[in-house]
This record gives sequence, structure tokens and C-alpha cells, in this order.
Amino acid sequence: MEYDKFFSEDVGSFMRSPVREIFKKVDLSAIYSFAGGYPDAATFPIEDIRRISAQVLEKYGARALQYGATQGVPELREVISRRYGVPVENVQITTSSQQGIDVCTRVFVNPGDVVLTTAPTYLGALQSFKSYRAEIRTLEEFGLKRPKFCYVIPDFQNPSGETMTLEAREKLVAMAREQDFLIVEDSPYRELRYSGEPVPTIYSLAPERTLHLGSFSKIFAPGFRLGWILGPVELLDQIYVCKQSLDLCPPIMDQYMAAEFMGSGALDANLQKSIALYRAKRDKMLALLDKYMPQGVSWTHPEGGLFLFVTLPEEIDTVALYDRALAAGVAYVAGSFFYPDGSHRNTMRLNFSFLDASRMEAGVRLLAEVIASAR
Amino acid sequence: MEYDKFFSEDVGSFMRSPVREIFKKVDLSAIYSFAGGYPDAATFPIEDIRRISAQVLEKYGARALQYGATQGVPELREVISRRYGVPVENVQITTSSQQGIDVCTRVFVNPGDVVLTTAPTYLGALQSFKSYRAEIRTLEEFGLKRPKFCYVIPDFQNPSGETMTLEAREKLVAMAREQDFLIVEDSPYRELRYSGEPVPTIYSLAPERTLHLGSFSKIFAPGFRLGWILGPVELLDQIYVCKQSLDLCPPIMDQYMAAEFMGSGALDANLQKSIALYRAKRDKMLALLDKYMPQGVSWTHPEGGLFLFVTLPEEIDTVALYDRALAAGVAYVAGSFFYPDGSHRNTMRLNFSFLDASRMEAGVRLLAEVIASAR
Repeated sequence: MEYDKFFSEDVGSFMRSPVREIFKKVDLSAIYSFAGGYPDAATFPIEDIRRISAQVLEKYGARALQYGATQGVPELREVISRRYGVPVENVQITTSSQQGIDVCTRVFVNPGDVVLTTAPTYLGALQSFKSYRAEIRTLEEFGLKRPKFCYVIPDFQNPSGETMTLEAREKLVAMAREQDFLIVEDSPYRELRYSGEPVPTIYSLAPERTLHLGSFSKIFAPGFRLGWILGPVELLDQIYVCKQSLDLCPPIMDQYMAAEFMGSGALDANLQKSIALYRAKRDKMLALLDKYMPQGVSWTHPEGGLFLFVTLPEEIDTVALYDRALAAGVAYVAGSFFYPDGSHRNTMRLNFSFLDASRMEAGVRLLAEVIASAR
Repeated sequence: MEYDKFFSEDVGSFMRSPVREIFKKVDLSAIYSFAGGYPDAATFPIEDIRRISAQVLEKYGARALQYGATQGVPELREVISRRYGVPVENVQITTSSQQGIDVCTRVFVNPGDVVLTTAPTYLGALQSFKSYRAEIRTLEEFGLKRPKFCYVIPDFQNPSGETMTLEAREKLVAMAREQDFLIVEDSPYRELRYSGEPVPTIYSLAPERTLHLGSFSKIFAPGFRLGWILGPVELLDQIYVCKQSLDLCPPIMDQYMAAEFMGSGALDANLQKSIALYRAKRDKMLALLDKYMPQGVSWTHPEGGLFLFVTLPEEIDTVALYDRALAAGVAYVAGSFFYPDGSHRNTMRLNFSFLDASRMEAGVRLLAEVIASAR
């Protein structure tokens, strides 16, 4: 049977995640993986989760298992409201911050509408924008057509690891106000700062036109698929109506668990440990790159998050190199996947959160050898 | 600030769920509610969930908390595959069966494409179809334009409570094959049969062109937001790519819990109890309607599920009557909300699963009084 005729026009613009395709092909535990964006499983608060899951069933009983409000359970919205100093009505819970990106695109973008991004930027966001047939432009390519929104990850960006300065944030806000577009501030890593000083969120600078996307994936556990959006009620209201038909409501028991975890102080205690662990991993990673990488290779020095971005000599194509690296037993994600136009084929994203610290040296050495052999 | 200019054209077609709007306005526990589609909390296997959540953390550890495959965790796909006799590659896990409806619409429907439905049909499906600006036609209105798919709930339909006969299913399949459209078979209630004999699924009759949507909401607990799609791999493959940008993957720990619950036999044990409870509630509801409803009122006699559908004399408008009913302390959902064209304003959907059996008589009597007073 021939199925192509059934598909919508959007399907032609769907983009498979090369990261997820990699995961289908190889057993990550069998190689040195700097691919993916997995947190270190050692940061998962398993004991807290064991305790809290029993507590939540005890405290809320059937309410933890029944349908709930599309905006999210009040208890979780309140905990987030208090933590980030935002009124409850400005908080919408999402079934993952990926859903936050998707629902913002769905609510604002028609085919052909312009979405501004930085380049490189998060692959899952590009997937979403492309799937709605948005015209993706980088901030530098700003044209005549008014963009619907600009998508940025200001803190410890995925994939670059870089953080926008206050001046850059203020400049973006000024531009958004002048050209009258919205800002989608994706902020899954903000709480994972290992050095330097926090910079105010874009949401705090322009609450009237910013949708701030938060995530429990890196401060609780990604398996819960929970995030949130902070934003103007006028925008959240349409997101709420859209979310009714997306999935009715986010997972209820998971929300109560997240509320308990965040509200009780257990999150902050766990976060301190996670930050210490990741800081050591980042430092080790940077030292190993210094030690092993051949001349002509440079990389970013992130103050937080999970990634750093490597630039190789112009003539090295990391897409072409990938199979050889995998055969040697080391994985990365080619940097060009994070560019809307597929350029910068001499770059790669390295994740430093997932691989066990004890295996990092062998992995970086191997990667350096693969790179050196490609020259 | 003026926000309307930011919204996509789809937003104009978004439809607020009148059911969810009702829930925002009233405290359901304070009235006799036949509105909503909530399961009886007594069917929630809280003890099993307490035990299984600890087991899952013990057995899978960090895997239960990490990111997972977009298709769903293999353990859950395998359990569903065995239970329903379908190869694993034909099983996609969804974050609720509402997401199943949404993702099918997204993958198949462009604005203006025809979706066939029965009338009445499930409100959440109408919301999804309208949000993608589909042209919704009833099976009787079949026109010149080839539909992309036909959406049906063959077993104990929401809202009518009716079940399609084998002949009706075969006729639909023949029509789909002749006119070359797909069938989306929404099947959240199928396992809740209280009398009569099971009828083969449409998926079993036409596996090459049917997407069968299953749900854990009525056989486990709706708070978990888990469902599944059975269908041809060629269609599931695009649904899989779409789902990457929707939410990366369904909630992981919840999936392991559902796998444990379904695979261990705990689901079947709990289902037997749920069926006994609901059968008694259905029988009581039907007896109470017989006892209290004024002449000229008729209703369906469902063999399963959560709903029955009431037809009042032509001159009674259940949308207009609603506020009076609510003031009197009883809630229903006006039947016209389930018709794509908003017709049949003399009908209402009654849910018999949620209200405590001991409160049913007072509720039905009150509803009968409100109806009698409207003549």
C-alpha cells in the first residue's frame, strides 16, 4: 500500500534528530559518548524519589492519579511561582520544555512566518520550527519581514555552552521592542552554573513579550517530562487552549512529586551536589582538551550547562568523520546539525555531563587521535 | 500591549473545551456531577502503584529517570504487543491518547483537508481537528473530496455510549478501501465492557489503513497520561519523527510502571473489579432514569464505557438550561458540543462513572426536576 498521499504538507519538512538516530544505532554504554545531552545518572535523586512517591500517594491519594487542570496542578504552579518570584497566573506547566517550544511555535507560527534564532542553536527547536514550515533566520540575517519571535538559550547554550552578556540581552530586548516581536527564552540549564555570576533572565528584562521556558530535566530527572512556561497571561491563555487538545494536562503524579521535591528544599540540596559533580567534570574536560587536542583546534569555556563546542581546522568535516569516530569507539554530534543552514561542518558539540569522569581521559584521547588522523 | 498580531491563523480555530471551562467554574465535589469523563477514583489501584513505583526504582534504577526512546520504552511496547497480539514495531507509545489524536491530525491534515467523523463525537477530537483547520464532515455528508481519515470510537462511544456493530465496522472498512482513506480508531473504553459480546476492532479488520489508539486512562489511571498507537510502520515512522519535536519521549518512570502493571496481571485483576463497579453503576443509572425522567425523554443503553446520551423533547435547549441545572446543583454536558455543527441542542451527555453510587439517585431526581421544569 502506498502511504505518501496521506501525509500533510508539514511532513515534508519534518527533520529526524541525528542525535536520536545515533542512539538507535549504537549502545552508548559500549563507547565513549560525548554525544547526547543526558544528565549524569548520579545526579538523579533516587532516594528522594522513592520517599516522595510514597508521600505523594499518602498525601494526595486519588488526586495524584486523576485528571487535572490543563494549566498544571496548583501546588506545582505555586512552588514555581514562589521560587522564581512570578505570580501563579503567569505559570503554565508543560509536558517537557520541548513541548513548551512546540506549543509556542504552534500558537505563533504559520508556514512562511519568520523565527529568529542564534546560529548554532538547539536541534529540537530547529526540528519544531521546520515542522511548522517556519522561515528560520539568524539574528544577523534580520530582514524586512517582522519575525514572530526570536528563540534564544541565554545561559550555557546548547550547543555552544556560551552565555549571553547582560548587554547582549538588553540589545535583544531593545530590538524586540523596536521591531515588535516576542522572545522565547529557553532556559533548561540556568540553575547549573559552575563559575561566574548569574546574568538577569530576559524574562526579567521584558516580561511583557517574553516566554520563559523552564525544565525539570536537569534539576530533577528527564524521565519526568515536566517543564513550565512563564509569560504574559494573554499569551499563556492561548497556549492553555492549545494544550487542551495536545494532551489535556501534564502527568499528575509526576507534577505532585516535582512540587514536593522543589518545595521541600530537596531540590536545592540535590542541585548543590549536581553542580559540584558537573563543575569537576567540566574542569576535567577542559584540562583534557588542553592536554590532547592537536593544534588548530579550539573550544568554548562554558560557565555552566552540559556542553562545549569545538572548532576544528576548516578542512575537517565532522559529518564525514563521524563514522570513523564511532568505529574507533567515540561519539560526538556534528556541529553543523545545529546550524539552520547546515554550515560549519568543521565543528562538533561535546557533552561533558554523561560520560563517567573515570572514562573521560580515554575518550578525549581517542577523539583527539581521530581528529589528528583526519588532517 | 496588544497581542493578537502574534498569533498564528490556527489560533482563530482553537476551541475551548466547554467541559474544562465548567470545571474551572465549579467545585465538582459540591454538586451532583454527570459532566466530565472522570473514572471513579475507587478504580485507581493505589496499593499496586505504591508497590510498583518502589519496584520500578529498584529494578530499573536510573533508567527509569533518564531520557528514553521516542517510540516508548521497549518493556512497555512489548507488554502491549503481547496483550493485543501485534508486533512490537507496530506499537508507538504516546503521552496520552489525546496526543495520539493530535499527532495523527498533525501528520495527516492540512488546513481544508476533510476529516470524517460520526456525529456526535468526542469533543477533544473536534478540538484537535478544528485547531488544524480541518474540514469536518460527518459520515453521511461524504462529498467529492477524498477524506484524509475517518475518526471513530467504535466501542461505547463518547458521548453516545453506543457500539458499532460488526456490519457497521465492515461497511466503514469497505468504504475506506474504496475511497482510499485511513481510519483512526479511538479505543479508550474497549476493555470496560459490562454486558454483550466484544466486536472485533477495526484495526483487526483493516490493519493496513487503521491507526488504533489505546489508553491507560481508564484501565490504570488518567494521571499517568499514557496511551499507545497500533498501526502500519510506514505511518508510525512519521508519527515517531513528529513526536521527537512534540516532547522527545513519553514519561519514563510512568511507562515502566504501566509495563509492570499490565505485564504482571495486576491490571487484569483491577479491571475485573472496575468492571463490576461500573456495571452496577450503569445498571443503577439506567434504573434511575426509568424511575425519574419525565415522558418524552429517551436515552441510550451502553454495554460499556462511561457515558450515556439523553434526548429531550425538541423544544428543550440544554445549553440554555445548563445554568439553571448548575444552580440547582446538578451538572451535565450539553450534547450539541459533541456535534461538529453544534446542532442537537435537545441532547445531553451523562457520565455514570464518576459520581458516587450513593449520590446517584438524588442527582438523577434533581436533573429530572430541572428537565420537567423546562417544558
